[in-house]
Amino acid sequence: MIGKFIVLEGPDGSGKSTMAQKIGQHFREQGKQIEFTREPGGTDISEKIRELILDRNNTEMDYRTEALLYAAARAQLVHEKIIPWLQEGKVVISERFVYSSLVYQGLGRKLGIEEIEKINDFGTNALKPDMVLLLDVNPEKGLKRKLSIDGGDRLENENISFHQKVYEGYKNLAEFCPEIRTINAERTIDEIFNEIKDIINSL
Amino acid sequence: MIGKFIVLEGPDGSGKSTMAQKIGQHFREQGKQIEFTREPGGTDISEKIRELILDRNNTEMDYRTEALLYAAARAQLVHEKIIPWLQEGKVVISERFVYSSLVYQGLGRKLGIEEIEKINDFGTNALKPDMVLLLDVNPEKGLKRKLSIDGGDRLENENISFHQKVYEGYKNLAEFCPEIRTINAERTIDEIFNEIKDIINSL
Repeated sequence: MIGKFIVLEGPDGSGKSTMAQKIGQHFREQGKQIEFTREPGGTDISEKIRELILDRNNTEMDYRTEALLYAAARAQLVHEKIIPWLQEGKVVISERFVYSSLVYQGLGRKLGIEEIEKINDFGTNALKPDMVLLLDVNPEKGLKRKLSIDGGDRLENENISFHQKVYEGYKNLAEFCPEIRTINAERTIDEIFNEIKDIINSL
Repeated sequence: MIGKFIVLEGPDGSGKSTMAQKIGQHFREQGKQIEFTREPGGTDISEKIRELILDRNNTEMDYRTEALLYAAARAQLVHEKIIPWLQEGKVVISERFVYSSLVYQGLGRKLGIEEIEKINDFGTNALKPDMVLLLDVNPEKGLKRKLSIDGGDRLENENISFHQKVYEGYKNLAEFCPEIRTINAERTIDEIFNEIKDIINSL
């Protein structure tokens, strides 16, 4: 495919949206066409699945159900939007992708990284990003910022030890996935983006 | 697990509900506790997923999304209801299970039997039924009966060649899965149930 697929990963409140906008601006200045997306969601069907996952009433949801729903929402996004965009030569910037599920469901929920990769490879037909940027920020710091804004949803209200596991999960995952570039995100926006720009330019 | 898990499979209109009731009655007379369930659905969360799958407005739904949603609904049913019931020693009678997905998504949608088995084994933690009965009835006959009753949902309105493929899929699957017992369901209710009763008694 002739487009470029860029993924931003990292805990809640790590600044993924801000960096997505900066990266989009950078490519736009180079005359590229840009598409933004976020997970879980990004299509009508994926948004409906997202509502199911995040609904505070669904306290009985089994972890395996949750993992399959994330994979379903992602499959729809990939086939309805991302692949067609890449085929048109666009730059696609996504907040979260398979890596979030590997960390949250595979490690956080202890379902196993390989198992989660298997169901997602089925859903995405094994689509791989051209670049994965992990925004590295202390989880308590990120979470506090997020909760102060919107009160949090079902997942954000999990206790802090879950989020600590997720953070460590991201760090572990980065060791095993050579495509992940870890960025220190506890700096100013300009400092962070300057590092990202160097990586983009080497793409 | 000390209970018994019995699955009824077959095309729409093959008489699964009628036979489920007859089988339930038979076990009840033996003093067993019975639970009935159907797919997709059977829990609050699974019913919400079922609504998403069958909604006529979701015409853009990718086949892989559909397969993952079926697996998610099934995972919830298995962990929230079926496994606890079996642990209590009950007889669980389900209309449809993994076999429906192997046929409809694996063969009908051409996603591959092994791929569909993989995502479902993840969801159900590889739970296997004690008995699988396939009610064998000509698909045109079954479908006409179903459409005359309720007008059909998104899947039932697929063209007849899809349903023909499903029918042949069931026949093929039965050759590969020794646990499937094929029952000629183009006979009277009593004739069909007498054959089933013999199988049950040998369980």
